[in-house]
Amino acid sequence: MTLDAVLSRIDADLPAATDRLLDLLRIPSISTDPAYKADCDRAADWLVADLQSLGATAEKRPTPGHPMVVGHIGEGAPHLLFYGHYDVQPVDPLELWDRDPFDPEIQEGPKGKVIRGRGSSDDKGQLMTFVEACRAWIAENGALPCRITFFFEGEEESGSPSLIPFMKENADELKTDIALICDTGLFGDSTPAIVTMLRGLLGEELTITAASKDLHSGMYGGPAMNPIRVLSRIITGLHDETGRITVPGFYDGVPELSDEMRAQWQGLNFDHAGFLGEVGLSVPAGEQDRTPLEMIWSRPTCEVNGIKGGYTGEGFKTVLPSKASAKISFRLVGQQDPHEIRKNFRAYVESQLPADCKVAWHGHGASPAGQMQIDHPAFEAARQALSDEWPNPAAYVGCGGSIPIAGYFKTILDTDAMLIGFGKDDDQIHSPNEKYDLSSFHRGIRSWARILDALT
Amino acid sequence: MTLDAVLSRIDADLPAATDRLLDLLRIPSISTDPAYKADCDRAADWLVADLQSLGATAEKRPTPGHPMVVGHIGEGAPHLLFYGHYDVQPVDPLELWDRDPFDPEIQEGPKGKVIRGRGSSDDKGQLMTFVEACRAWIAENGALPCRITFFFEGEEESGSPSLIPFMKENADELKTDIALICDTGLFGDSTPAIVTMLRGLLGEELTITAASKDLHSGMYGGPAMNPIRVLSRIITGLHDETGRITVPGFYDGVPELSDEMRAQWQGLNFDHAGFLGEVGLSVPAGEQDRTPLEMIWSRPTCEVNGIKGGYTGEGFKTVLPSKASAKISFRLVGQQDPHEIRKNFRAYVESQLPADCKVAWHGHGASPAGQMQIDHPAFEAARQALSDEWPNPAAYVGCGGSIPIAGYFKTILDTDAMLIGFGKDDDQIHSPNEKYDLSSFHRGIRSWARILDALT
Repeated sequence: MTLDAVLSRIDADLPAATDRLLDLLRIPSISTDPAYKADCDRAADWLVADLQSLGATAEKRPTPGHPMVVGHIGEGAPHLLFYGHYDVQPVDPLELWDRDPFDPEIQEGPKGKVIRGRGSSDDKGQLMTFVEACRAWIAENGALPCRITFFFEGEEESGSPSLIPFMKENADELKTDIALICDTGLFGDSTPAIVTMLRGLLGEELTITAASKDLHSGMYGGPAMNPIRVLSRIITGLHDETGRITVPGFYDGVPELSDEMRAQWQGLNFDHAGFLGEVGLSVPAGEQDRTPLEMIWSRPTCEVNGIKGGYTGEGFKTVLPSKASAKISFRLVGQQDPHEIRKNFRAYVESQLPADCKVAWHGHGASPAGQMQIDHPAFEAARQALSDEWPNPAAYVGCGGSIPIAGYFKTILDTDAMLIGFGKDDDQIHSPNEKYDLSSFHRGIRSWARILDALT
Repeated sequence: MTLDAVLSRIDADLPAATDRLLDLLRIPSISTDPAYKADCDRAADWLVADLQSLGATAEKRPTPGHPMVVGHIGEGAPHLLFYGHYDVQPVDPLELWDRDPFDPEIQEGPKGKVIRGRGSSDDKGQLMTFVEACRAWIAENGALPCRITFFFEGEEESGSPSLIPFMKENADELKTDIALICDTGLFGDSTPAIVTMLRGLLGEELTITAASKDLHSGMYGGPAMNPIRVLSRIITGLHDETGRITVPGFYDGVPELSDEMRAQWQGLNFDHAGFLGEVGLSVPAGEQDRTPLEMIWSRPTCEVNGIKGGYTGEGFKTVLPSKASAKISFRLVGQQDPHEIRKNFRAYVESQLPADCKVAWHGHGASPAGQMQIDHPAFEAARQALSDEWPNPAAYVGCGGSIPIAGYFKTILDTDAMLIGFGKDDDQIHSPNEKYDLSSFHRGIRSWARILDALT
């Protein structure tokens, strides 16, 4: 049988596939930092060459930011699109890494071998699971079972500024029967998952200015307004004592979880204590009347992702600074409108400013939440294929993160998207010492081979 | 007459004196940053050589930190000590400087010539006023009119960690009839001032840790505690809505201003609107029922001098950080006990921590407020000498800054200290584009010659 031969080849080819991934991980393609622009370009070139080695027509396509990679291969129905991103998160604080984040290696972990390095899980390792499945299929059968379009982005970790214009300009080329997105995780260690709900994301950066220059806190401390204190008060006021967000109109469009969905999620027996304990916590923060799983999958949040002001170097400086700034993000659900929330948030902050203070804004992307169309027949076919590969049957789940492209496939291309990934909660994505289990990589490749078989 | 000849020589020698100061300003002696350790040493060497050129026995004296410079010259009564500091503040934000902070020059300002560069006013320019007065006196008369001890410190801008041990170990050498300290300012542009009240300073650095590592705000945002939010709430809670500080017992030992002193200060006609307007502000912050002058000279404060947490680089990173930290300082008055306040502040913060959060502390110096002994006859003599030099008579004033050494002379050496300086409010000390008016430098040198004459 075709599938069995492909799966055997995947098993035999795993060491070579791992070497290819390590090669890609060595490229420090940090999209948010302009210093790494050439490296992002280099990662795109690497992928173009790799797709061409499969026999695909592939090319790097320019954008105002980092390039897209688009490739085409195969014939016949259905026409599938596969999306992944080749850019990675910054690596600071660098001192918390056990090794150079861009000198990846295979390590023995407590639960088996892991691929250690920035981007191993988010998203280069995941991206390569599908490419390797195609490689094995072609090697065994000479050709893929259907037509496939590869679509790789290099700005996912920095708000995807070029994505919507690119999708609109290339809509005819990118419109397919279904889009496969590999940027999510398993549920636990052995339950594959198809994400059916994704949170949206609104990013805002604000800088509050008081005096026209930095002052001496001895000379001006007291009568001069301190922008760090103003910013702290604004941040503090963004949540009430029950953990609810105070921006006017913020909860417009937030749906209450249905009893059926709540029951299904309870059936997953999520280990709330273990989830918090894994990162040194024991008491859930956030809204008082919600479980952690409910908060992450179905509730909106407001978090401060960074703050700075005044002197933060070694030693002490008695400065009363002129400015203080923060990066604040909102995770959105249901029908929450990111543009409306941006407007209300800015008005709310401006209404809180004391005399002599002003605020400057820098928006960092605004994407609504996503809801997948699970009545599309590909969902049940994929769920069955995943259940065949893994110890436990596949589950439909929510996702706390934001993968705005899922919504764009629907709104721009009228293509339904299916989110399947093999990351684990302890992969430390966006953190020091990111890893991807070798078993995620291996079973991930096998899973895509099974899904290709099931969809054709 | 001796004094007139010395004053004439000072006038004639001003260009050479200015060149010597520019030479000293070129040494980047930033004491708080270990990267500049060799430069601090170099500044001390420069001063030793300059004192030796006057005929003083001078040497660099080691400490666990940056060296002291001690020199002796002259004979007869009274025995005066002169104190200044050769270290300077850091220069960030560097992009706000008009030129390299350590490439000083004389510039034409709106009110006359200024010496532009880090340390020009705080404190190298001030320190050199006294040295140049001695140089002119010696050149004109062959010798000084009394015995003088020079005592220069290199750690004033980083909490003076070596000062107390050094003063205790060298008490016999440093004990004199009176100590002259030049690290303060004029009152306005033309009124010389002798400071009779100084605020104390307590510096604290705290780091709040929640999760054991940085988290993804999509995966953990909501149920995981955010240390930036915890820190913001603690900072916000440090003041009540009337501007009073909420640390328990904080106001113990804070005296109410006497009616006489309040009346004298009102007589100075301090330009409150101009003081705030100079730095782009219009409405006094701080305690609601106090004038800015009263707050700066006689009220304690609590300020945040620096804050950082999470991602603060270019672009956006949806991290939920593990840690957030702040540098917080208290200006103290009257009999406030810095050690008691440190203890109460730490207990107060610890009482505010939510579950799963912990705080780490780093203390940065603790000095009480100072009150000068204006019944010492040198005060009236100096006040008269200053009044002879400047357009307006000299005033006894308070000072918002903290010059802990004034208190140490009294407590360690039983020597009264007199604080006289020639800085101006717009000197931008601790800020970009620090300057010292050439007229401050010139009249400052002349003022010390007059004071030497008046005290001998």
